[in-house]
Amino acid sequence: MTFVVGGCRSGKSGHAQKVAEAASSTRRVYIATCIPHDEEMEERVARHRNDRDGNWRTVEAPIELPDAVTAAAENGNVVLVDCLTLWTTNLLLSPEASPHINRYTERLIDALDRSGCPVILVSNEVGAGIVPENRLARLFRDVMGTVNQRIAAVADEVIWTVAGIPVTIKGEKRPSA
Amino acid sequence: MTFVVGGCRSGKSGHAQKVAEAASSTRRVYIATCIPHDEEMEERVARHRNDRDGNWRTVEAPIELPDAVTAAAENGNVVLVDCLTLWTTNLLLSPEASPHINRYTERLIDALDRSGCPVILVSNEVGAGIVPENRLARLFRDVMGTVNQRIAAVADEVIWTVAGIPVTIKGEKRPSA
Amino acid sequence: MTFVVGGCRSGKSGHAQKVAEAASSTRRVYIATCIPHDEEMEERVARHRNDRDGNWRTVEAPIELPDAVTAAAENGNVVLVDCLTLWTTNLLLSPEASPHINRYTERLIDALDRSGCPVILVSNEVGAGIVPENRLARLFRDVMGTVNQRIAAVADEVIWTVAGIPVTIKGEKRPSA
Repeated sequence: MTFVVGGCRSGKSGHAQKVAEAASSTRRVYIATCIPHDEEMEERVARHRNDRDGNWRTVEAPIELPDAVTAAAENGNVVLVDCLTLWTTNLLLSPEASPHINRYTERLIDALDRSGCPVILVSNEVGAGIVPENRLARLFRDVMGTVNQRIAAVADEVIWTVAGIPVTIKGEKRPSA
Repeated sequence: MTFVVGGCRSGKSGHAQKVAEAASSTRRVYIATCIPHDEEMEERVARHRNDRDGNWRTVEAPIELPDAVTAAAENGNVVLVDCLTLWTTNLLLSPEASPHINRYTERLIDALDRSGCPVILVSNEVGAGIVPENRLARLFRDVMGTVNQRIAAVADEVIWTVAGIPVTIKGEKRPSA
Repeated sequence: MTFVVGGCRSGKSGHAQKVAEAASSTRRVYIATCIPHDEEMEERVARHRNDRDGNWRTVEAPIELPDAVTAAAENGNVVLVDCLTLWTTNLLLSPEASPHINRYTERLIDALDRSGCPVILVSNEVGAGIVPENRLARLFRDVMGTVNQRIAAVADEVIWTVAGIPVTIKGEKRPSA
């Protein structure tokens, strides 16, 4: 399992896609966690979708990501989850899911443990700026940082991206991807 | 002297504590720079305190950190300062200390130079987001960045943390901690 | 071509200057992209200028950076561009240039390709904090991240700075600079 973490527009998704495409040329599953709320996000989603070729199947899992990973790993040769940041946002904003984020994270880790194919997960680093004035934003930074730490702890490989450059900070440096 | 720097919830404090506990099993001194202003911060302080075992003694030094480091290094086998970010905030918000931040930083560096035991310092990276609109926040970013640079310059080892993964960016990579 | 990227007050400019001064002791050209709008910025510009010795010539290129790089590379032995963040800001805020930022970036890459002397470029990482509430700030993060990725992709060497420590993330680690 590979975890790719970096700032906004740091090349996370592009690098994660390369890792996934190097892992298998067929039956790739892309799990989108995004619920597009406005035109700005819809454009971003469409742009990302156009970057993927026909060997990708896209499924949407804004909340029930653990089950989606399990299903995708059964039917696919490689699974790409993009991204944990929107998933965490969706959990925080859902009145039903919000009190159970730790449980969701544990279920995701279980699903990753049991998956029989490579899974690549993408997430944002959101904690390296000034402390936000908004209390919800501070809560989100804390929760997101905790999710990132737990996923990185169980990942075989952690890659940090900056300015499009992937830097392997945990696990073996792969030769070419 | 080891300096651990990273974003919010990046695993800084946890890693710094591991480094300190590897350095000595007895007479560990934890220097808290925090002045808990509200319930949110009190909970965070209590959570951190519960993470430390009985071989830790806690002292508080919101402003007079240089003297606290000197005293702690005389009485302890290892000193952990958590964190320079709150210390810098306290200095900036103190009418007496605010004009003398450079002098405080020099006194801290002197105290670190003279300390006869390992000292581990924790600080936040706060400059990798968008320029804040608030002028005090911009000033804080500048001052914090300068303090971080000066401490990193004299540290034997600088560790940057992201998603709970420690990355040694200055000094020898320690085998196990 | 060397690209130095890091957060605010992370030691980017200082390190870039060292790399430039190691590359040539004479005919160094500093390209400032800054348009000082207020006293705060004027002080910062003057402070940076005082850090450079008499072997530096300073030119200003808030918008027409590609042409300035070409001219500087013809007349100088080393060129330092500080910084792409202010250049990108100037482009975004210019009604004439704003629709053509991709074209400006391509022209800059062409100018770097054709330059016959070392060029060092400095830029900010701005995407590792919380998503800004302001739409222009979100647009700026996206555009800045894209410019950083494109320049890093063509750079021989990419250096990421944190707390004043330079970390080479692409290219050969130079022995001393």
